[in-house]
Amino acid sequence: MKARVVVTLKNGVLDPQGKAIEGALKSLGVEGVESVRQGKVFDVEVTGADAAAAKAQLTAACEKLLANTVIENYQIDV
Amino acid sequence: MKARVVVTLKNGVLDPQGKAIEGALKSLGVEGVESVRQGKVFDVEVTGADAAAAKAQLTAACEKLLANTVIENYQIDV
Repeated sequence: MKARVVVTLKNGVLDPQGKAIEGALKSLGVEGVESVRQGKVFDVEVTGADAAAAKAQLTAACEKLLANTVIENYQIDV
Repeated sequence: MKARVVVTLKNGVLDPQGKAIEGALKSLGVEGVESVRQGKVFDVEVTGADAAAAKAQLTAACEKLLANTVIENYQIDV
């Protein structure tokens, strides 16, 4: 089963990488971009067909490895 | 207006970072993960309320900066 995990910075956490992208887009002449925040996405192939079990495994994966829960939120779509 | 851009590696492109995550999850005892591929997500705040115009700007941003279109696909959700 395919699942997607999206990890994003919490509100209020500074994102220098996003700021750099904003600056670069302005330099490149791309108008209309007010702010950018960068995150990570993980496309995961999970064994089995039980969505609830897959979600539980992915929650464990996020808590242990994929997200730094002090500064990041994660969202799991199974 | 908020928009989300997801940049992922094309099929067939090796993803050593994803492989490392797979290995780390196994070491940490997270079962049931068959494969992982990592990508990037950009949460963009766009000026104006015209979805078509925003999409055009974000396509330009992807082509110029956010994605390496030789090895990456991008998907824009406005």
